[in-house]
Amino acid sequence: MARGKFIVIEGLEGAGKSSAMACVVNYLQEHQIPYIQVREPGGTPMAEAIRALVKQPWAETVTAETELLLMYASRAQLVANVIEPALTRGEWVISDRHDLSSRAYQGGGRGIDDAKLATLRQLVLGDFTPDLTLLLDIEPARGLARAQARGELDRIEQEELAFFERVRQRYLNIAAMDPSILVIDANQDMAAVHHDLLQQLQVRFMQELD
Amino acid sequence: MARGKFIVIEGLEGAGKSSAMACVVNYLQEHQIPYIQVREPGGTPMAEAIRALVKQPWAETVTAETELLLMYASRAQLVANVIEPALTRGEWVISDRHDLSSRAYQGGGRGIDDAKLATLRQLVLGDFTPDLTLLLDIEPARGLARAQARGELDRIEQEELAFFERVRQRYLNIAAMDPSILVIDANQDMAAVHHDLLQQLQVRFMQELD
Repeated sequence: MARGKFIVIEGLEGAGKSSAMACVVNYLQEHQIPYIQVREPGGTPMAEAIRALVKQPWAETVTAETELLLMYASRAQLVANVIEPALTRGEWVISDRHDLSSRAYQGGGRGIDDAKLATLRQLVLGDFTPDLTLLLDIEPARGLARAQARGELDRIEQEELAFFERVRQRYLNIAAMDPSILVIDANQDMAAVHHDLLQQLQVRFMQELD
Repeated sequence: MARGKFIVIEGLEGAGKSSAMACVVNYLQEHQIPYIQVREPGGTPMAEAIRALVKQPWAETVTAETELLLMYASRAQLVANVIEPALTRGEWVISDRHDLSSRAYQGGGRGIDDAKLATLRQLVLGDFTPDLTLLLDIEPARGLARAQARGELDRIEQEELAFFERVRQRYLNIAAMDPSILVIDANQDMAAVHHDLLQQLQVRFMQELD
């Protein structure tokens, strides 16, 4: 059994990650590829409990380091208990966020040095990395307006606009240096976004999807 | 106002940390030194929530890395929100466990490389370190018997004896190389342990306690 592929959907709040996930899933179903869907933080009972801690508001200051460590604690559980076993079984894994979110949010957003993040990533994940990351790039104000229209914002989503501008910039800077990250213009209408997504999948996984 | 001192009590389950904490506290009260007591993991509302996650049993495997990251997440909150502010106010801080527990339990017990732990410690704590650590050294079988007599054991306390033998050995190896860690023989009766504790405090803090 060939090892499965690990595909990650990334982007700001309101970038359209959920509908992109559905689009990718639909495509895999059409090609009869076995897959699972996960999300970060979360994806195992313990990781979901960690997600709740990191997203709820606290009367105390949550340090950038604490937030970062909780993200990696959740990620360690998810990779070891769900993602790796699925890939080994030959299933594809589609994840709503992964390590790139920590680099963009805790790095770009909160100002933690990227070298520190690299150290932590190496410590927790070693060389484990997605086969493909689809980064839905959206203007922060537009994304936040969409997210707000959906309902209540969590602790991180309540940051000011400048925070999300920094996150977006870090996303784009990292993508510019990493060919496994493809940027999709999520300011377009949904049909155009999905068209771009499917085209990228087709190009990237031509062999596997034959 | 002179910066307070940070004193840590360390040791295996059943080593007598609680009564040692009470002994130190009593001594500080006698010398009219302002102090606070904390414990790890825990010590802030968020850190206590993390403590609950790390101690409860889970149906899934809890990876050594996850456990380690949760310990540091709790520690980051406690140091930033409680310990540092207290020391700055001139209060002393007495803690039931601190960083040395991660080196002994997740390092010695779970087998995470000490160099990895040093990297994580530097990332989260920088150069922050206790002024004095009192390590209550006890034979694991004796300590566990005491802990069992006290009631139900948590997820970590349910490890086999060999785990605690490794933890003890790592505690002693680290102490042998670090003059800020003093080993107290906790196989003695409580009066003798407390006598040793107080003697060490007296010697270490002669100036501050005059």
